[in-house]
Amino acid sequence: MTTTVISSASKEVKIGFDEPFVIIGERINPTGRKILAEEMKVGDYSRVEADALAQVEAGAHMLDVNAGIPLADEPAILAEAIQLVQSITDTPISIDSSIVEALEAGLAVYQGKALVNSVTGEDEVLERVLPLVAKYGAAVVAISNDETGISEDPNERFEVAKKIIERAADYGIHYSDVVVDPLVMPIGAINGSGKQVMHLLRRLREELKVNTTCGASNVSFGLPNRNGINSSFLNMAIAAGMTSAITSPLHAEVMQAVRGADVMMGHDPDCTNWIRAYREPAADGADQGARGGRGRRRRRA
Amino acid sequence: MTTTVISSASKEVKIGFDEPFVIIGERINPTGRKILAEEMKVGDYSRVEADALAQVEAGAHMLDVNAGIPLADEPAILAEAIQLVQSITDTPISIDSSIVEALEAGLAVYQGKALVNSVTGEDEVLERVLPLVAKYGAAVVAISNDETGISEDPNERFEVAKKIIERAADYGIHYSDVVVDPLVMPIGAINGSGKQVMHLLRRLREELKVNTTCGASNVSFGLPNRNGINSSFLNMAIAAGMTSAITSPLHAEVMQAVRGADVMMGHDPDCTNWIRAYREPAADGADQGARGGRGRRRRRA
Repeated sequence: MTTTVISSASKEVKIGFDEPFVIIGERINPTGRKILAEEMKVGDYSRVEADALAQVEAGAHMLDVNAGIPLADEPAILAEAIQLVQSITDTPISIDSSIVEALEAGLAVYQGKALVNSVTGEDEVLERVLPLVAKYGAAVVAISNDETGISEDPNERFEVAKKIIERAADYGIHYSDVVVDPLVMPIGAINGSGKQVMHLLRRLREELKVNTTCGASNVSFGLPNRNGINSSFLNMAIAAGMTSAITSPLHAEVMQAVRGADVMMGHDPDCTNWIRAYREPAADGADQGARGGRGRRRRRA
Repeated sequence: MTTTVISSASKEVKIGFDEPFVIIGERINPTGRKILAEEMKVGDYSRVEADALAQVEAGAHMLDVNAGIPLADEPAILAEAIQLVQSITDTPISIDSSIVEALEAGLAVYQGKALVNSVTGEDEVLERVLPLVAKYGAAVVAISNDETGISEDPNERFEVAKKIIERAADYGIHYSDVVVDPLVMPIGAINGSGKQVMHLLRRLREELKVNTTCGASNVSFGLPNRNGINSSFLNMAIAAGMTSAITSPLHAEVMQAVRGADVMMGHDPDCTNWIRAYREPAADGADQGARGGRGRRRRRA
């Protein structure tokens, strides 16, 4: 029953086999968001702040923070964005960059135990990122690709994940602090990718006993009604053992899928959270606070 | 790769491991529908007709027909309702009654290979229903309870299913013509019932190699936003191996869950059905179905 603990200065989140599913809010990411990128580049974090608060309000348990802006000082911007987010919410953070210097700058200012997003199975990346993860006592997202790219063979992706976990152990990082991303391919392009990823998720859980995550919107790339596909994917992946996802809590359908999956997995005892989120409003106007998924507050032990 | 073929005079439906999920429309059932019950009792089948057409239009692959009306001549009414439905649609039928004489009356008039709904593991029921199923060359829903009621232990429910399949074989009914209903308990009452039923579905598929079905709305009994829970359940149960369900295709969320699950299972090649159902209307006449800019795209070196 593996549990990965991530924390801020005052709050812990547990990703685990026996825990409610963890939603890592994906919105603070300038990739494909031109206005956000321009603002962050000149030190305007008002939209970062709004995105942070909106995602927490909508039910995010963690926030991913990415500052990948071309020709910008990513390490400095990422550190500033993290400090800003930590000044307005106690929600733990996933520090997201493909640039090692930016990960280090983020870790240096982060208060608590962060999730480093991410390390791949490439030797050079492993040798640079894992020492940082160890130094700061963080956890890390392990993406199951390596120098050869992303294998279409899920068994090869499994082997890459295994290699990362073994290498992490060499640096003193316990497997419970490695959260594997099995890589979800767009189902519109690869018809078998859904069954593949479910099989892989089950193996990662049963054989390597690790927690798992993914960018949950990739699966629906190119299709209409993306939230519908994302909802099916989330439910099925959670049934197969997935314990967290990087996605947008601002989509009501995504939140409903995750809450429904928690109920079905027995992770919402007495359906308390479900009832709080979807209880019909009282006719006399009393007790409307929890209508439709807004204002959901979730306590974790 | 077990396949159960059900047919009308001119149309076949396949329930199977490698087939799209089969929705058996549940609406033609007077239980809890007072007006429908009164109409059917006096031979007015206008609502039966409307329900049949609406469910087929909404995407039902089969129609369940039930005529369980207190103090009425159920065998005669069931036979008439079946003839009516077969006169207006070629959609194959599940003949639904707990009264053996009604099942026989329905089978006697049915054109094609019906699904008999249902037989339990009670010896007396087995001995009366299975000969009928064999005589008419039908398939049968096997409900995993027996004289002792519904066991809370999923292993006992598995054993009941196994007993029914073995007894059916004695009557010359192949296991591919037995569709097992593992019995889904309300998750609001039994917190562990979700994981239980998924485990049971997996065992039924892997060990007994049978197709499965269930009354998919039971799971959400007593909870708000029932379609939300039903959607999560359907996705997760399909991931675990369930191949059909008796439910209402008139709920858009239920249909979306099933269509999404078909995509994820690789049973909607090229996502053809998904795109047809959810393609956005083109503003200028061009196909905008693949609007994909808003997802998370993650580039990694």
